Amino acid sequence: MIETTENSPIGVFDSGVGGLTVLKSIRATLPDENLVYLGDTARLPYGTKSPASVLRYARRATAHLRSRRIKLLVIACNTASAVALADLQREFAPLPVIGVVEPGASAAVGRCPASKHLVLATEATVRLGAYGKAIRELDARASVQELACEMLVALAEEGWARGSIAEAIIRQYLQPILDSDQRPDSLILGCTHFPILQDAIRHVAGGQISITDSATTTAAVVARTLRSARLLRRGAHAQMQLLATDGVGRFARVGGAFLGASLTPDDIELVDL
Amino acid sequence: MIETTENSPIGVFDSGVGGLTVLKSIRATLPDENLVYLGDTARLPYGTKSPASVLRYARRATAHLRSRRIKLLVIACNTASAVALADLQREFAPLPVIGVVEPGASAAVGRCPASKHLVLATEATVRLGAYGKAIRELDARASVQELACEMLVALAEEGWARGSIAEAIIRQYLQPILDSDQRPDSLILGCTHFPILQDAIRHVAGGQISITDSATTTAAVVARTLRSARLLRRGAHAQMQLLATDGVGRFARVGGAFLGASLTPDDIELVDL
Repeated sequence: MIETTENSPIGVFDSGVGGLTVLKSIRATLPDENLVYLGDTARLPYGTKSPASVLRYARRATAHLRSRRIKLLVIACNTASAVALADLQREFAPLPVIGVVEPGASAAVGRCPASKHLVLATEATVRLGAYGKAIRELDARASVQELACEMLVALAEEGWARGSIAEAIIRQYLQPILDSDQRPDSLILGCTHFPILQDAIRHVAGGQISITDSATTTAAVVARTLRSARLLRRGAHAQMQLLATDGVGRFARVGGAFLGASLTPDDIELVDL
Repeated sequence: MIETTENSPIGVFDSGVGGLTVLKSIRATLPDENLVYLGDTARLPYGTKSPASVLRYARRATAHLRSRRIKLLVIACNTASAVALADLQREFAPLPVIGVVEPGASAAVGRCPASKHLVLATEATVRLGAYGKAIRELDARASVQELACEMLVALAEEGWARGSIAEAIIRQYLQPILDSDQRPDSLILGCTHFPILQDAIRHVAGGQISITDSATTTAAVVARTLRSARLLRRGAHAQMQLLATDGVGRFARVGGAFLGASLTPDDIELVDL
């Protein structure tokens, strides 16, 4: 077992830069924590890969982060959470491992009980039905639709987060459901790329629909878990390390928008898994 | 050295399904040839990966296809062609290896001498400047701009090849250049995903601009190379094998549009590289 203390970093892992929205929320919620983020950019996107491949990638990323003595792991990728959470919790015990699916599902159910939920996600997350399962376990009266929106990932990566093209693409996915008798009361952003599209999604969906963003709700679960394990850090000079498995130039350029801070390639360490 | 005959297959390799546009052109040009296609879907997209990673992936794919006794290899991916062509030609000699960049560049220069060319490509292809180099070697009076259009890859993969969203995205990329004094006379589709967007691109660019599609021109080079090596096959019952490194379901669903034929998962063999 690897010894950890409250000064040990929180590990956050994603297929690429999308999980930086989760990192940003954790930094805002827990500004004293040391953080190490690993973007598996050599293997992204996970959203169109098979579960067996995603599990293999997630294991390697977790093993690498554990070698950096993390005290808690956040799987900041919905696809990897849906595929690998239970396996990683078992294989890396007693390391606490938190995914983004359960916090998102739980927050949506808390806000909108007995509601119609619509989950926007990648193809792999939808195919696994992880949100549907998590929501129905929490609220037997809830109904859940899950919708694969691959173009939204590209849109977020390209930085076209606002404007007429973003809204037209979002409308193309959402309008048939908004116009149907299955019109949802609750939208769940089931991909860590999507929070930066939230304004455009709100514009298309209208003001009546509740929008849940897993990034924020996951940060709250991280805080709760560390508090109950007496592993919260207090103090100044918190460190943030960013690691990527490929293309640090692109990581810096695209990632800044997700983290909400400008990055240069020198801020990112290239690691080989 | 591996023995090959005219009955040996032509090997075609791409990061995913985009290269099926090249396969389709080869089938149309050389209907008697046996074909084996490998889509490296476990590692796609190559367009945002580093050259070192792309070269490593291309080597593995080529080694696998060589083990299936191919008589010629087509790198049906612009990024892999730009990164790996010279290395693969040297390492796998005397296997003839054909990329898509030179045939595309050569066709564009033949049609539009001393012209302004605009290459639409992935980020990696643009960064490598392979089209610019190839065109200027063939035509010192030509000028070349290269434009990264990552959203077009997602658009093609999602099957949104026509309509207002496709045209709005294409316009977002092209309009500033079309309106500038660097307005091109020639557009080169420098990514194998883009031929299925050709009608929408034509609609935005207008009728005056010549559009060159590497898929068609590469098939002509394949025919010429086999003819001069006396390796052209004549005869019925040509076979086509489709291999993928991950996600045969998605390969079948998305790939059909690129190949111009409907596919089922049973048509695709999963291979582990």
